[in-house]
Formats: sequence, structure tokens, C-alpha cells
Amino acid sequence: MKYKEIEIEEVNCECTDLRICRGVLTAVTEGIALHEAKYLSGFGLITAAPIQTCIEGILSESETPDGRRGVIIQFNVPSAVSYEKFHEALLKRLFLIPHLPTCSLFDVSSKKEDSFIDIGESIRKWGDGFEVSENYKGRDIYRIPIMTGDMLVEKTLNFYQGLDGALEIFAQNAVSCVVAAQEATCRIFNEVSGVANFNYPVGGVSGAKVGGINYTKERVTINDPFCPTLKNTIKNSKLPVGANAVIEYPIVGLDENSIKKALKIAIDTFATTPGIIKITSPSFGGQWGTHKIYLPKIIQ
Amino acid sequence: MKYKEIEIEEVNCECTDLRICRGVLTAVTEGIALHEAKYLSGFGLITAAPIQTCIEGILSESETPDGRRGVIIQFNVPSAVSYEKFHEALLKRLFLIPHLPTCSLFDVSSKKEDSFIDIGESIRKWGDGFEVSENYKGRDIYRIPIMTGDMLVEKTLNFYQGLDGALEIFAQNAVSCVVAAQEATCRIFNEVSGVANFNYPVGGVSGAKVGGINYTKERVTINDPFCPTLKNTIKNSKLPVGANAVIEYPIVGLDENSIKKALKIAIDTFATTPGIIKITSPSFGGQWGTHKIYLPKIIQ
Amino acid sequence: MKYKEIEIEEVNCECTDLRICRGVLTAVTEGIALHEAKYLSGFGLITAAPIQTCIEGILSESETPDGRRGVIIQFNVPSAVSYEKFHEALLKRLFLIPHLPTCSLFDVSSKKEDSFIDIGESIRKWGDGFEVSENYKGRDIYRIPIMTGDMLVEKTLNFYQGLDGALEIFAQNAVSCVVAAQEATCRIFNEVSGVANFNYPVGGVSGAKVGGINYTKERVTINDPFCPTLKNTIKNSKLPVGANAVIEYPIVGLDENSIKKALKIAIDTFATTPGIIKITSPSFGGQWGTHKIYLPKIIQ
Amino acid sequence: MKYKEIEIEEVNCECTDLRICRGVLTAVTEGIALHEAKYLSGFGLITAAPIQTCIEGILSESETPDGRRGVIIQFNVPSAVSYEKFHEALLKRLFLIPHLPTCSLFDVSSKKEDSFIDIGESIRKWGDGFEVSENYKGRDIYRIPIMTGDMLVEKTLNFYQGLDGALEIFAQNAVSCVVAAQEATCRIFNEVSGVANFNYPVGGVSGAKVGGINYTKERVTINDPFCPTLKNTIKNSKLPVGANAVIEYPIVGLDENSIKKALKIAIDTFATTPGIIKITSPSFGGQWGTHKIYLPKIIQ
Repeated sequence: MKYKEIEIEEVNCECTDLRICRGVLTAVTEGIALHEAKYLSGFGLITAAPIQTCIEGILSESETPDGRRGVIIQFNVPSAVSYEKFHEALLKRLFLIPHLPTCSLFDVSSKKEDSFIDIGESIRKWGDGFEVSENYKGRDIYRIPIMTGDMLVEKTLNFYQGLDGALEIFAQNAVSCVVAAQEATCRIFNEVSGVANFNYPVGGVSGAKVGGINYTKERVTINDPFCPTLKNTIKNSKLPVGANAVIEYPIVGLDENSIKKALKIAIDTFATTPGIIKITSPSFGGQWGTHKIYLPKIIQ
Repeated sequence: MKYKEIEIEEVNCECTDLRICRGVLTAVTEGIALHEAKYLSGFGLITAAPIQTCIEGILSESETPDGRRGVIIQFNVPSAVSYEKFHEALLKRLFLIPHLPTCSLFDVSSKKEDSFIDIGESIRKWGDGFEVSENYKGRDIYRIPIMTGDMLVEKTLNFYQGLDGALEIFAQNAVSCVVAAQEATCRIFNEVSGVANFNYPVGGVSGAKVGGINYTKERVTINDPFCPTLKNTIKNSKLPVGANAVIEYPIVGLDENSIKKALKIAIDTFATTPGIIKITSPSFGGQWGTHKIYLPKIIQ
Repeated sequence: MKYKEIEIEEVNCECTDLRICRGVLTAVTEGIALHEAKYLSGFGLITAAPIQTCIEGILSESETPDGRRGVIIQFNVPSAVSYEKFHEALLKRLFLIPHLPTCSLFDVSSKKEDSFIDIGESIRKWGDGFEVSENYKGRDIYRIPIMTGDMLVEKTLNFYQGLDGALEIFAQNAVSCVVAAQEATCRIFNEVSGVANFNYPVGGVSGAKVGGINYTKERVTINDPFCPTLKNTIKNSKLPVGANAVIEYPIVGLDENSIKKALKIAIDTFATTPGIIKITSPSFGGQWGTHKIYLPKIIQ
Repeated sequence: MKYKEIEIEEVNCECTDLRICRGVLTAVTEGIALHEAKYLSGFGLITAAPIQTCIEGILSESETPDGRRGVIIQFNVPSAVSYEKFHEALLKRLFLIPHLPTCSLFDVSSKKEDSFIDIGESIRKWGDGFEVSENYKGRDIYRIPIMTGDMLVEKTLNFYQGLDGALEIFAQNAVSCVVAAQEATCRIFNEVSGVANFNYPVGGVSGAKVGGINYTKERVTINDPFCPTLKNTIKNSKLPVGANAVIEYPIVGLDENSIKKALKIAIDTFATTPGIIKITSPSFGGQWGTHKIYLPKIIQ
């Protein structure tokens, strides 16, 4: 269907179920919080890393326990990954935190959900006995002395059943791909609560497919129908006329409504950024999750 | 000794021997190359991650095989980590690369050293048989179709015996710590070839000590003599009068001369940034490496 | 009085009355909008320029007429400057706009106030007869062809009687000054509508005094009681013990409540940034405006 | 002629003679120096402002008198503007400087050319008698107390006869325009000494033509042959097939060789950025300067 300047394929966005743990990293300034959140969240795609690390947005100084601005991070894996493996990978990733200058880590919300994950027991060992357990502004935390001052780490983080969603974006060229992805990410970062992006601040990646056609033993390989330099080589190329570049735009979020809201904003960004031609959603045969979001319904 | 506005402790900087592999990540713009280099290089300290990932600087468009600006990354581990474990961790980290939009990965230098590491064989499997082996501008590469176009990955990266060095910086407050560290990093990034920083662009971290005093089973714990909130609690606090914050400033590099050059620049930055009081170097009992650099000699 | 970590002088913030005109500059991305807003808003202090140009914040894509994110700018002068001189200076400053790639300029609000300033008649002449007058999404605009596409310029901008306010911040060192100012600016930019900052994104400046003690013919000179290198030289130095740097933190806004809200946020930022010692407000003998805001009342 | 991925029109780049004054603005960090250089250099095109303000690059800490990194700015006007008017406009622009926190202003080179402009006499009046004349690291300066510490202002800046040059870039869409311009600017900023860009960091603008076809009394109007939304309306449109956006890429520099070097780098950037179609140079009838640079010769 035609939508603004582009074409939208009338397909479902198939959402994978996710295990999500969500924290906010505060620091002496928002700038430092962003640098450190990105340092903590690098290398965060499940194809290569044991855990995914996505950046959701800012909590203002009036919303965090310590009155400093912070960056919300969603640590997540597909639900196909066991809870034990997720917890293990989460603790390993968070073991970096005592290195981050001026930082503290809290849960995003002050109210505990039914499910929460213990992270404090692992991180507090850094304290070598100098760490102190306390209740700080209503939060159960460890106060750990580090070089820049005290680092506060909340003992538990809420644990959610969330989901992901992804778009495939066809464009005239790769510049329009990355610029549109970065602008969509800027909008979601600022306007949508509960949804997070990969590869922040770009937000878009070159996507993969499960398994291999020729290399059948590989876990993941390139998604060849979406590769522009193969469009004249393979029979099942999905590149429309005039498209010379593609980018995958994946998001994660706490619930379907937030994902829909973010997809609407993303689609509107792509639909109005010069050089974008068409949007679709990658198909996984509908096996990976319980939610399907019909793209045309998002923009109605 | 007094140096400009500060005190420098007359001690050795004890350098750990490192295994280093060095690559340059190019992209459609320097801005995208920096974003993706940071995404690839996040979570990169050996205390928490299986490999360290440090950012060295920019290669200009006249210095890269594909004529685009790129970011040089030093993937490294202490030499105490076996070559096999390093190679395994390197390949796992680089497995992310086919996701990075518009990127390519090359060796920094066109001339192969005696030692080099094969990275192409692992990454090329992403290509699912569509990848092509070729000689590109004198480099042996794989051309792998991805969504934004072709990704070029050099088959091997030069492998070096390098070293690290670190300073401990005492300051009036944590703001001076992070600002001075970030400025030292900016200078090294731009002015010194062969030396790379952790936690780019901040460059400073809260450091750790090996083992634990109380938690004797821990691999790493806080470096308590350098923690300001313990200065009135412990007997061996190293905080000088007037210092309320500390930051550790670690660098890695290919050779001792480059490390010395970078330490000189770092010391000069700290010595002239308002709020910095004193510089020393952490002591590891001289066990971890073959190089010692006497701090006073650096500034002569 | 003591407030959190600092001292606040129990004085009035004396607010100057201002003439304010407010527009939003949209562009193909928020990043470009910010670059161009800063380019348009440089050189924007009344001591040196004929008009002040302050950056207020972002309007989201759902709040602008063209569905792109934009930066709100407050063009302003003290009310002591005549309306004619303000209008002349405004038109001269806005004459730059047809150069700004991908940009458009709209009023912030869709509802016209009683007072508005015509800007379209001057800018449209750039169009050389190719410009078109139209009603666009309820706005009266000129559509002017430029190199990157059509630039839309709303014919009038609402005109307000606003006010300014300023704080003087004493700190241990200049690094704390600029970092705290930049963080306060980040918070106001994101959290307060109707208030704008000078010298964005730093937000702080070295302030001036009216006239001169020795150079009596000068319009403006340094504010010597607030200059740290004069603290042992002059009798009326305002520097408290331990302070080695000062920064002036001026803001402008549409009404007193917004200014109060922004001053509260600024004071809280300064009160919790390491290295800040004391806050006061510069005194102008109460002559320049009708509003006085008592600092202690802001933080109650 | 075909060049890499694009078409280059075989025309001259006609260079206007310029009066240039060049200074370096240092600050406590490179980041602050860049913010303040941009604040000083905003609103800097001769069509709208009385002086042009272009950003050239960074001087490292080993190249500036005060050992801090600084940003080089070229203040310039076409030579058609009298020396007196240039000097007057320069002093007015520099009158902002005592407001810039932690900044100092020096000449770029320590060696005085035959021609130099006095700037100190005007700025020093800010000092109200507290300023001090001294020789600092071989430079004749005024030391002016400001709020963040002492501001050093060199008394004179070298004065050059320079020139400008400009390209017109045709692209598939406006996103490729701004991205390519920003990348060209990044390269010139880092790789070419003596050449500076407008509207930093974007570097490209929508250009103007002298006078008007219909509005004959206007000084400047849109350059209609280069406006994409007029391509089907006017007879003399220069837009090639497939081009939907244009950007003008103007640079200024101290001498022809530097301009040629920068144009080469710019052309190479545009020739390899996705979405760029063709490059030409705007024609002014050859009246405005003594230098013509033949585009094909630049890339040989």
C-alpha cells in the first residue's frame, strides 16, 4: 500500500518473545551517562553476544532516586534462551559496572513487579567488604566505594516478558538508510517509553537470517534476499526497483502497545526521509513469538 | 615532585605485556565509523569481558584501502591469557561485524608483520556461499554482501606484542577527573599513533585491584586505597589532602616509545586541567610485565 | 543559606524585561536542525550583537506543522531597545535562513497571540518571484524554493513580553563551572517549556557589568567583583573562600513562572555538581525590570 | 567528464578574492573550544552578516601558546568590502570574546606577516583598567581578568589576501547532500591547513545569486537554476536527470594551492558518497576574482 512517499508491504511484523531486565544508569552529567551506557551496551546482538543490550531513553533528574539524569537500558534475550542463561549473561555484563566513573545503577521503577532479578549479590563482591547495604530513597541498594565516589547499585531489577519487532527498509542508497534509522531512533528515544533500540544511536543494522542455504551448519548468515549486491544474482531478491541499499530496524519493548507506538513513529520517519522507497517486515514463518502486528494497522 | 600545577609521585608505571590485534573499521562517514567502532568496542575490560577493545584513532581517507575514513581499534589481552583464548575471544567479538551498517574491516598497515591472526575464515561464513575471496587494493579480503552493500573484511590482522600503562589521578572532585581524562584521550586519539584508550571517549575508569583483602576468593575488587569515601576509614588510603575523587587512566600501545609519548601527553593534560592535584601509577609489585617507565623521566 | 552541598545568597534575582519573538527551525533530521539552529543563534549577546538568540528546546515531530523535529529559538532584546530596532535586528538575523539546508521556520504555536511580528515579507524577497504564498496545515507561510527543496517560512511569529534571570556560580575551578552550566542547560532544554539558554549547549558565560569604573566611557566591562584573578587585588571581591572560578548563568523566558521553574532546576543542578560552592544573583540596583525573584523562595 | 561514480562539469571554479584574518580560540578542553568557536562563528555569511566566520581546524596543544587545544577561525570578507569596513566588522564580532568561558584568542602563527590587524585595543577595554599588557610565550597579549580566570588576547592577528571557491553538488536527495557535505568538511577540517568551512560542521549551504531576475532591487536571491522544485518550471534549470536536491559547498583559504587541495578532497568525498550524481561550480561571469581553478585539473 502507498503511504506518504513510500510503499508499505501488507505483511505482519512477527514479534519474538523476550526476557527483559531494565535498569537506569545515572552519572554526574547526562553526557557521561550516555557515554557509559553506550560503553556498557556495546556488542549487544544475540547472534554474536550472549545478551542483547538496548538503549531506551533518558530518565530525568526528577525521576531517578539520586536526582541525576540517567539512561535506561533494556538487557534482553529471546525467551528461547533459558532464564538461567539470561541471568548468567546479565551478571557477566553488569560485572563491568564498578569501572564506570561516577555511575550508579537503579531499577527504572520504584515499584517492584512480581518478577525481579537479583543483580546486587554479584556486583557487591567488588566491594571487598567495604560495601554497605542500605535503603536509599526507598530503594534497596548496595553502596560501593569506587574511585570517583560511591556507586549505588540497586539489589534487584524488575524482570519483564517483552517482545521485539523489526522493519526492513529499502532505500535509494545507504546514506538514506543510516540517516533515517538514526532519526527514527532519536524520535523513539525521546517520545516512547518502554521501547529500546539496538546499536544506539544509529538504531539500524544489517540483519541476519537463521541458518544457511549453502552453509547449513551455520547458526546465522546474511539475509541474502535483502542484500543489494545480490539483487541481480539470486532469484528471490526482495529489492524493489530503484533500491540500492537496505537496513533492518529492530526494536525491543515491554509490551505490544509500546512496540506499536514505536513502529508507527519509525514508519512515519522512514516514510518522510528522502531516499526511502519501501518498508516491509522480515518473515520468520511465524514461529518465534505470540504477537503479530499487521503493518497497515499500525499506520491507520 | 612538583610539575606545573600538580604533584607527580616518583614511581614506576608498571606495564603489563599484551597480545594486540589491530584493525581499522571504515564506514560511509567518519561519524558512522565512530558510532560503530564504539558499538563494537563496548564492554571491553578484561576484568569483565574475555577481550579488551580500545580505540586508537582515525585513519584518514588517504590511508585506508577503501578511501573512507576509519577508526583504529586495538583488540588486546594480557599476555598471561593464552594465544588460543585470545584468538577465540577475538573471533567471537568480530562475529558482530556483519551487522554494522556500511562498515568494512581492514588491517591498519598494508605490510604484514611476522605474526598475523586469521579472522576472515570465521567472518566469511556469514556469507553463506555468496562471499567472494579477492585481492582488493593489495589486500587479501573477503567481499561479503550485507544489507547496506558489500562489506570488505581483510583475511588477516597483524598481531603484536604490546604493553599497557596506567596512571592514577587525584582531583578536587569527580568532574575534574572525567573532564581531564576525556581531554587526555582526545589528545592521544589525535596526536599519538599506536596507542589506544579504554572507555572511549572518556578514557578513564574506576580501577580494580587483583584479589580481595576480605573477599579472598574474588578475582577483582575495588582498589580501596584509591577510594575517596574510604579515606578516613582505612589506614593505607593514598588520597592526598584536598583530593575527593580519583580516576584511573589506562592506555595500551604497540611499543614502549608510543606509550611514553602518550603518557607524557596525558600527564601534561592532567597537570594543566583545573582541579587535578596529583598523579601516581598503580603498583602491581612489578610482576606483570617487562617494562617499567619511571614517571619523572617521562616529563623531562 | 545552606542548600544541599552549597551556599545560596539570600538575594533577589533581578529580571530584565525583554521583547521576545519565538520560532521553531525544522530540518530533515533533529541533528541538522540543531546544527543550523546553533549557526543561526551564534553571536547572540546584546553586549556585542544587536539581538540575542537563545535556544529553548525541541518540538517533536507531532508538534510541528511539517512533521519534522525542530529547535525552538527565542530571539530577544531588553525592552529598553525599541520595538523598531528589535524588528530591524530580527529581520537582519533571519535573512540568513534561506541558506540553511533542508530547513523551514514556523511559529511555535499555531494560535496567534495579540502581538505578532511580520518576518515573511523580508525573507520572501529571497524567492525572486518564485516564492508562493499559501496556507499550510493551518499556517500562513511562504514556500520558497531553495537548493535542498522547498523552505517554508511562516509569515508572522508571535511576539511576547518576557523576562530574563541570571545566577552567578562560584566554584572550586573552571571545569566545574562549565560542566555544571552545561548540565543545567541540558535539563532546562529538556524539561522546561518557554525558557531558553544563551551560548547553547554550554549555557554559561563570563558576565559583564554596565559601564566602567576606570573606563567610564565604555558601555560594558568585566564584572570585576566576580573575577577570581582579582580576588586579592580589589576590595569588593565577591569570591568566597575556596572559589577559584565563577560563571554567569543567564536565561530568558516567556513568563515569571517558567523562569522560576528553570531557576529551580538550575540551582538544583549547581547544588549537586561536584566543585560548586555558592550561588548568588547579580545586582543591577533593581532598575532594569519589574520582576524580582527571591532566590530562597525558588528552592522552597 | 566521468569521475568515479559521478559526473564533473568541465568548468572553472571562479574564486573571489578575500580579506582574511585568522585566529585560534583555545579553551579548557577541545570540546569547549569547539562549542565557543561555533558560538562565535555563527551567523557568518556575507549575504546576511557584515563578516564571514569560517572554521578551519584544530591547533594541537603543542602548537598553541597556552598549551591547550584550540579552534582556528578565518574571519573574512570579499575584497570588494573595504579594509575599514572589514576591520570594523571584525572588532564588532570579536567584542563577544570576553564572554566565552575559559577561552583565549591568539594568532595562529607566531611569526608576524607584513600585514596584521590590531584587535587588542578594542577588546582590552573590557578590562576596565584591570587588564595587563604582557609578552606571553613570545606573543604580545593583553591578560584580561574574566569570571573563569584570565583570558589572554593577542594584540594583533595576521592579515591575509585569500580566496574562496565553491562547488555545486547535485544529488538524488537532500540527505545525501548534507551527509556528503558534512563528511567533506570533516576531511578538510582534519587534513588541510589554511582552508576553512562555512556553517560548520555541515559545511554546505543553499546558495544565492547576486541580484534578482524579477526582484531587480534585491541584493541577493535564490539561485533558481539550482532549485529542484523549479526544475520543471524554468527553462534554465541545471538539475541533471535523477537529481532532486542540490547543495552549495563553499570554502575559504589562504592561497590557491590550499584551496585546490581542499577542493580535491571535497570532490573525492562527493564522488564516493552514495546518492551524489554530479558536481559543477557556480559561474559569476568571471568578475569576482583573479583565480580560476579548472575542475578537471583538480582531480588529475
